[in-house]
Amino acid sequence: MAAARAGAEELGNHNDCLVRLSNPNVAAMKEDILYHFNLSTGTHDFPAMFGDVKFVCVGGSPSRMKTFIKYIGTELGLDCPGVDYPNICAGTDRYAMYKAGPVLSISHGMGIPSISIMLHELIKLLYHARCSNVTVIRIGTSGGIGLEPGSVVLTRQALDACFRPEFEQIVLGKRVVRSTDLDEQLVLELMQCSVELSEFPTVVGNTMCTLDFYEGQARLDGALCSYTEKDKQAYLQAAYAAGIRNIEMESLAFAAMCRACGLRAAVVCVAYLDRLEGDQISSPHDVLAEYEQRPQRLVAHFIKKRLSKAQVPS
Amino acid sequence: MAAARAGAEELGNHNDCLVRLSNPNVAAMKEDILYHFNLSTGTHDFPAMFGDVKFVCVGGSPSRMKTFIKYIGTELGLDCPGVDYPNICAGTDRYAMYKAGPVLSISHGMGIPSISIMLHELIKLLYHARCSNVTVIRIGTSGGIGLEPGSVVLTRQALDACFRPEFEQIVLGKRVVRSTDLDEQLVLELMQCSVELSEFPTVVGNTMCTLDFYEGQARLDGALCSYTEKDKQAYLQAAYAAGIRNIEMESLAFAAMCRACGLRAAVVCVAYLDRLEGDQISSPHDVLAEYEQRPQRLVAHFIKKRLSKAQVPS
Repeated sequence: MAAARAGAEELGNHNDCLVRLSNPNVAAMKEDILYHFNLSTGTHDFPAMFGDVKFVCVGGSPSRMKTFIKYIGTELGLDCPGVDYPNICAGTDRYAMYKAGPVLSISHGMGIPSISIMLHELIKLLYHARCSNVTVIRIGTSGGIGLEPGSVVLTRQALDACFRPEFEQIVLGKRVVRSTDLDEQLVLELMQCSVELSEFPTVVGNTMCTLDFYEGQARLDGALCSYTEKDKQAYLQAAYAAGIRNIEMESLAFAAMCRACGLRAAVVCVAYLDRLEGDQISSPHDVLAEYEQRPQRLVAHFIKKRLSKAQVPS
Repeated sequence: MAAARAGAEELGNHNDCLVRLSNPNVAAMKEDILYHFNLSTGTHDFPAMFGDVKFVCVGGSPSRMKTFIKYIGTELGLDCPGVDYPNICAGTDRYAMYKAGPVLSISHGMGIPSISIMLHELIKLLYHARCSNVTVIRIGTSGGIGLEPGSVVLTRQALDACFRPEFEQIVLGKRVVRSTDLDEQLVLELMQCSVELSEFPTVVGNTMCTLDFYEGQARLDGALCSYTEKDKQAYLQAAYAAGIRNIEMESLAFAAMCRACGLRAAVVCVAYLDRLEGDQISSPHDVLAEYEQRPQRLVAHFIKKRLSKAQVPS
């Protein structure tokens, strides 16, 4: 029962692995307004609302994150007849947030700046709520490189558009670089879950994160493009050679910020298309909708497994 | 009647100033799927739907852009009793799009990557629709520097976090830099509109565009912060000395992409707070709601004035 005991210890001890900030100022603030969530420590009881959160799942689209909370609520047996999951951030349309038991589901919009605002406020929310042992997983969509469409990629390392595992920011006009390493153990656990499910192809690979969907990802079909098909293929082949299996727009900031605040984090994205074959997302709507569910099914399996381990008496 | 004639000429000649792409590939495409709008040239008649568009107003929040289309619809006398403005992108929750006569209103989310996806697809939409003489205006919110809260800033130049008028991108792993100059004449026209309205303070100034809301804008209240109040003040004072009067997160990409595709563009943002005085957006909701309307009122006045000039016979 070594595995079960480890799970129980991991989830059971509330003094262990409290969410921490990398900012001494927040502890001294009388009130903290999380503006883009429309929540404030002055008007909301964060420990009561969020103190039991152990899993945070994030994704770009608000409707996808609503779909996910209903799905995980059903999977965890938390549904109440006639009761919907309300949007906790209903007072704003910047982000949507839902909760089912120990699972929080939040949208982050598209791109590094959008997810970075969300993560600053999420990490402060978890800190104010005195949460411990929290795992954060991005369930997203992406373009694949050399993969069958519908494949799921578990990110080993988030790389920038020059294939470096670095998140570069400008802070007070100066360059600051942070590491984008993700939790290796979590990747192994998620891969094991995919093997158990055996429903769709899953690979572990590096994920390239870009600031633009068209030129930034070597697409030929944007409003601007100054390179050829041959240039594009050479770039994507070089990315493949660097271990990159998919391209999205949030993983660098996600990996760097979670790491800096001691949160275990994983990125689980489905690939909608193989970018070596084309640029446009032209699969029928129902095919894309089924692809979109794959990271959700994998992560739901993972959460159920973690929770069942935590409940086994040691 | 020189001004009236210029206006009529400007708006009347459809062969003049057609929206152009900076990409020869698109003209050769059989179908163009604007994935994030859920629109396609294969399923929608773009010239019929959008051919008469002369003004595109964009802003971060979907609900604000819905409010704006209702407001401009009323101001232009286009309202039909019992008829609402439907969301043209209803099949996706990435962006929201509304139309009232010659005005298109679109949300762009937060940050450069999010607005850049929207602009690629918007510019292609205008190109496929064979639109001409289009003016694009961002109506946004921002943090001010040395301004009374509620002031409106008309952007002279969009600057990066090192105060440079440059939009830097990584394309195929290489650095590409584009100019972020905006239309000077448009700034003058908008300033004249503000003088005529005389409802709120308006200034012309440079706008700093950052990739992050917290550390990237020298806030002391994020989940991460490694500098002092003194460091923050020094940075913001240096920004003020560089002519910067407000900070937001989209203007660099907006200015650069519109310029590269020959679209006249302006950035009109209200400042919610004075960043020299604090970091948190703590004004009451009704005060912020009134501030938020100010760019809308200014731009509605501008559009009405332009259209009335165009209708005066020469």
